[in-house]
Amino acid sequence: MTDLENRIDQGVGRAPADIVLKGGRFFDLVTGDLVASDIALCGDTVVGTCGDYEGREVIDISGQIVVPGFIDTHLHIESSLVTPHEFDRCVLPYGVTTAICDPHEIANVLGTEGIQFFLDSAEQTIMDVRVQLSSCVPATHLETAGADLPIERLLPFRGHDKVIGLAEFMNFPGVIHKDPVAIAKLEAFQGAHIDGHAPLLRGKDLNGYLSVGIRTEHECTTAGEALEKIRKGMHILVREGSVSKDLHALIPIITERLSPYLALCTDDRNPLDIAEEGHLDYMIRTAIAEGVAPLAVYRAASISAAKAFGLRDRGLVAPGWRADLVVIDSLESCKAQMVFSAGRRVTDALFATRKPVAPVGLDSVRARIVKAADFAVPVAEGETPVIGVMPGKIITEHRRFRLPTSGNQSTVDLERDIIKVAVIERHGKNGNHANGFVQGFGLRKGAIASTVGHDSHNICVVGVSEEDMAIAANRLSDIKGGFVVVEDGKVTGEIALPVAGLMSLEPFETVRDTLVDLRKAAYALGTTLAEPFLQVAFLPLPVIPHLKISDKGMVDVDRFCLIG
Amino acid sequence: MTDLENRIDQGVGRAPADIVLKGGRFFDLVTGDLVASDIALCGDTVVGTCGDYEGREVIDISGQIVVPGFIDTHLHIESSLVTPHEFDRCVLPYGVTTAICDPHEIANVLGTEGIQFFLDSAEQTIMDVRVQLSSCVPATHLETAGADLPIERLLPFRGHDKVIGLAEFMNFPGVIHKDPVAIAKLEAFQGAHIDGHAPLLRGKDLNGYLSVGIRTEHECTTAGEALEKIRKGMHILVREGSVSKDLHALIPIITERLSPYLALCTDDRNPLDIAEEGHLDYMIRTAIAEGVAPLAVYRAASISAAKAFGLRDRGLVAPGWRADLVVIDSLESCKAQMVFSAGRRVTDALFATRKPVAPVGLDSVRARIVKAADFAVPVAEGETPVIGVMPGKIITEHRRFRLPTSGNQSTVDLERDIIKVAVIERHGKNGNHANGFVQGFGLRKGAIASTVGHDSHNICVVGVSEEDMAIAANRLSDIKGGFVVVEDGKVTGEIALPVAGLMSLEPFETVRDTLVDLRKAAYALGTTLAEPFLQVAFLPLPVIPHLKISDKGMVDVDRFCLIG
Repeated sequence: MTDLENRIDQGVGRAPADIVLKGGRFFDLVTGDLVASDIALCGDTVVGTCGDYEGREVIDISGQIVVPGFIDTHLHIESSLVTPHEFDRCVLPYGVTTAICDPHEIANVLGTEGIQFFLDSAEQTIMDVRVQLSSCVPATHLETAGADLPIERLLPFRGHDKVIGLAEFMNFPGVIHKDPVAIAKLEAFQGAHIDGHAPLLRGKDLNGYLSVGIRTEHECTTAGEALEKIRKGMHILVREGSVSKDLHALIPIITERLSPYLALCTDDRNPLDIAEEGHLDYMIRTAIAEGVAPLAVYRAASISAAKAFGLRDRGLVAPGWRADLVVIDSLESCKAQMVFSAGRRVTDALFATRKPVAPVGLDSVRARIVKAADFAVPVAEGETPVIGVMPGKIITEHRRFRLPTSGNQSTVDLERDIIKVAVIERHGKNGNHANGFVQGFGLRKGAIASTVGHDSHNICVVGVSEEDMAIAANRLSDIKGGFVVVEDGKVTGEIALPVAGLMSLEPFETVRDTLVDLRKAAYALGTTLAEPFLQVAFLPLPVIPHLKISDKGMVDVDRFCLIG
Repeated sequence: MTDLENRIDQGVGRAPADIVLKGGRFFDLVTGDLVASDIALCGDTVVGTCGDYEGREVIDISGQIVVPGFIDTHLHIESSLVTPHEFDRCVLPYGVTTAICDPHEIANVLGTEGIQFFLDSAEQTIMDVRVQLSSCVPATHLETAGADLPIERLLPFRGHDKVIGLAEFMNFPGVIHKDPVAIAKLEAFQGAHIDGHAPLLRGKDLNGYLSVGIRTEHECTTAGEALEKIRKGMHILVREGSVSKDLHALIPIITERLSPYLALCTDDRNPLDIAEEGHLDYMIRTAIAEGVAPLAVYRAASISAAKAFGLRDRGLVAPGWRADLVVIDSLESCKAQMVFSAGRRVTDALFATRKPVAPVGLDSVRARIVKAADFAVPVAEGETPVIGVMPGKIITEHRRFRLPTSGNQSTVDLERDIIKVAVIERHGKNGNHANGFVQGFGLRKGAIASTVGHDSHNICVVGVSEEDMAIAANRLSDIKGGFVVVEDGKVTGEIALPVAGLMSLEPFETVRDTLVDLRKAAYALGTTLAEPFLQVAFLPLPVIPHLKISDKGMVDVDRFCLIG
């Protein structure tokens, strides 16, 4: 008997269903009704609703509510610091049955090998991991990435079952100004999904950007921006990550009327936040607590998201639809009691059935060994540019100070909270090393270093002591990438992220616990930032205003050029 | 400069747009707002909204409203009695910029040659004609069709640019009972669109039908049926044709909440109704007059329809979306003042640019020459089954009468309005000829004959006089198919439909005028039916209850078998 024949038999009630969820209600996202009904599952598909069914396995869900599995419409799994397999195990139990990821971070380090690793992983994960093809590698010419992905290297992946389309097209100035590399990619993906990324872009520049067929946007940070973009035909992906948190600002647009054109996403979310708050479920319950109609936010979390990305098989609890289901206690609290992914109940045993995928990029940290003297900054005339860091923001200020000197060198100035920052090329391409100054970390001693440094992921290190900066940077080579805290010549905290210098090989629980210890080690240096590693990781990102640092030097983002 | 580069330049306002619509407002189907704005078009795409634009051609639309082009989500172009080219010219000016057709009628006569004719035509029409592959040819084993389309003959068309998926899967008993031919077709189209057709199907049988992935339904005739089906994940295509009229019954479900999951369709609509009432525009204005919110019905007519069928490029007036636009006088009256199809203003000159497509099936009427004696019905014992026709319905009653006799023959009974009906196989397959009786036409003399006889399109003739019946049937062979009225031995009205015996080679205006004359000729025979030809055409349809007639004999539809 074929799958279809089985489904028919079980749907019409001629044979008992594989699984029946009994005694609960389901949330009908079409009509908005809570419907008391059995839910019959055959294989990976729902085959019965609005009726009573017999099942070979019957699960009592009395008092509970079934909703369609949640879809995270834009995220970088790398930002969870764990592999796709561990991400799966960490996040699926919260009801996230589909994750549409952009392997932009690993692609910047490893190129196509990184994308292939994600596709291989996606074929094993229990949740349905879909991959969009990273459209902007390298992100800019102002930095040294580990790889380059022109259109020729992306096209071979286009037809893969797990590939949806072209990932966030960050290079919006390139679109507006008709950069030939950007145009070639856009031409090649006409008719397929092309994801957007255009923070603050408005008016006619936005129209030009949209005219090439870009249709989704996760970078809206105000309701006004979102309203203009949704009116111009964009599907708005409301984002709440560990770094960028837009949910509260976008609450006004999460209405029933707009709900067919909304989705949810996390973009970047780390295991600590996931453990403490949850994932998309956190967004749902927060939105409802803020007064959003449950129908609006549950639609955004599933059916509307599925339609935006052409996933025709999921997003409703209905016969013939994929059995991605979340059993929750109530619409308001949205606590997942039980999750089904393509009809399989999510359990530890289910995760154990996955085949492992060999990690890649285990020798991706190929930085020169550095010494304290490498961090020396010769005295310059006049004022020195200083990156002004603000807590919880990846945007920085461009500040200028006359710095204290020692001999022929400019030095840190703890009274004004100005310390050193350096970026060290780590892909083995050119050994670049750039130094600068940063204000706002609150560090009184020691150093913090990271191989996560958006988007080209060179080593970024901040510190008070050049000796500690050197120890921290060199330690990253020893552990093949990660985060390191050094105090008084000793490593006081570290986490190894040997998969491309971005992801751990450990279980997510270990990563979570290690991050707690690591934060403590950083706090011991005096930092006043809640998330010092995230702030370090975004110091090199030269597409975010206003002053940044890459391996090539200090970057004036507003003028989009290197300084001096 | 490539298309994309042009679009960018015109979208950002760096170059004048190809066309600018100035001074009007557009109906934003996302927010529900009427937005005062220029609309800038570059080639086939909208590139600017919500702003002022300069254009190489500027069209003043002061006081008017722009809405996205309408999408007819299910129709048989053959039922308009004109070719796809003439259908295009007839219907596009009403704002119907996309027509998703099922060439089920011509496929029953000509098989793949008929489908190919539609695809060739679709490449020439100005409106975007999309084709679904006829899933049920022949419709049943109780009749002789001109062709047979098992899955092997459909698959070569699957990848065609104009093909969307599998057309209305009428054989719902075949799905529920796992007919291997049906299952093979459903298996082959998993992942693609599979259109539904399941009148009155409810409960678990409906669940079984849906479990194979069927997702759209145009056969709902009550709001209750529609509500069950929409709750079970079907996208409901509200239908208003010349034969089946469901709009009024379904008004209660055309709400803003349900609008993302609704669409509109005509199924079968003839040029007379189009001329007198309009097309989808008629449905829109009628719905609004009945109290439907404009946002709900305009969404159903465009963006929601597009999403249901995976047409990602259309359905909104927004940058980057296909410039299928209708300029109307008001939302309520929905009278198209100007139509744009992929950025081209619809005019006679534009239609003149289309290349003709050679008609097919010009010798499809291969019936035996008949004589009056062929319509003789020997006296049977007891009562005779008589098809009970009801005005405006394709459903019939199964009646039984003791008929008058003359010699050894049963005869018509004008006092009880019982006349003769015959179906003559006309594909040159077997020369079948079946006779019977029908009640309800009101004919006092003469005969009416047609080569349109759903779904296998054999000759169907009704009449008082066997001589006139023979003349009418034979005349159909002379004119290669069509409708004929005979009175007192003379042809008093006719229309030739030589394209597969279904469509005219004449302009739609000629067809419309000829139909007016033809109706008059039929009325002169005394018929009390408003649409006598449609009622003749559906007498052979053996999938509609309760009593029908095919070339094989009288069909008891409830028992789904021939009667002795």
